[in-house]
Amino acid sequence: MIDFMEIAKKQAILAMEKGEIPVGAVIVKDGVVIAKAHNLKETLNDTTAHAEILAIRKASKFLGDWRLNGTEMYVTLEPCPMCASAIVQSRISKLYIGTFNKDMGACGSTINILDNRRLNSFVNVKWTYDDECSDLLVEFFDKRRKQ
Amino acid sequence: MIDFMEIAKKQAILAMEKGEIPVGAVIVKDGVVIAKAHNLKETLNDTTAHAEILAIRKASKFLGDWRLNGTEMYVTLEPCPMCASAIVQSRISKLYIGTFNKDMGACGSTINILDNRRLNSFVNVKWTYDDECSDLLVEFFDKRRKQ
Repeated sequence: MIDFMEIAKKQAILAMEKGEIPVGAVIVKDGVVIAKAHNLKETLNDTTAHAEILAIRKASKFLGDWRLNGTEMYVTLEPCPMCASAIVQSRISKLYIGTFNKDMGACGSTINILDNRRLNSFVNVKWTYDDECSDLLVEFFDKRRKQ
Repeated sequence: MIDFMEIAKKQAILAMEKGEIPVGAVIVKDGVVIAKAHNLKETLNDTTAHAEILAIRKASKFLGDWRLNGTEMYVTLEPCPMCASAIVQSRISKLYIGTFNKDMGACGSTINILDNRRLNSFVNVKWTYDDECSDLLVEFFDKRRKQ
């Protein structure tokens, strides 16, 4: 079986190599990767260029539809409110999250956008508790502190 | 004095003319419009193509910086969580909102992303209570129901 989180981690490493916070995302439909992306906020000078948003836009382009029902996203870091809401609105069916984002995570760590009656939203979430996802972030911020 | 909400409303009308939910947004810096946009979700087949996101991306491109400190956004409808979080993260200083979004508004109507200690966010918000902003939405959904 293909380990899609491994593909997301490779995307996160590509982000780190560009000096970006290492986050990667992959969207899968019927067992096939239809979009992969990594954080490009600084490179593109675009606040919205988080891995998840870029992956959603690529998947919609690939399918010719903004409705991503029946797809799964694998993301190395817990999405922020912007990305969590984009995941809900794009109708992604299942979300695999590598590690927590205690400062901005919107899938339970600070607020919960994905499972919210007031927003009429429910996305099936599976936490994979993947140390490598958090190790990449620790490595990135350690390096940045030393610069 | 220029009525920037009027410019945002003209953007909302452009959206309606394309069959899109009529929402418009304008970003202003030092009294000058640096970006204007309208909802293009269906046209672009892109969940993220809300007026606010498109305006933020345009303003960042114009300024060559994702940091929009010192700018103001005028938006006809209360932003959803995706857009509210993008507004926080892009560091827009002040937000003028035309009317409420009781189903998805993330500036107080359902949740509050803009004034949230857990997210360490605070954006200065001014509600303009503009009936024309809501009238456009009522007109749009009335027409759609009759189709």
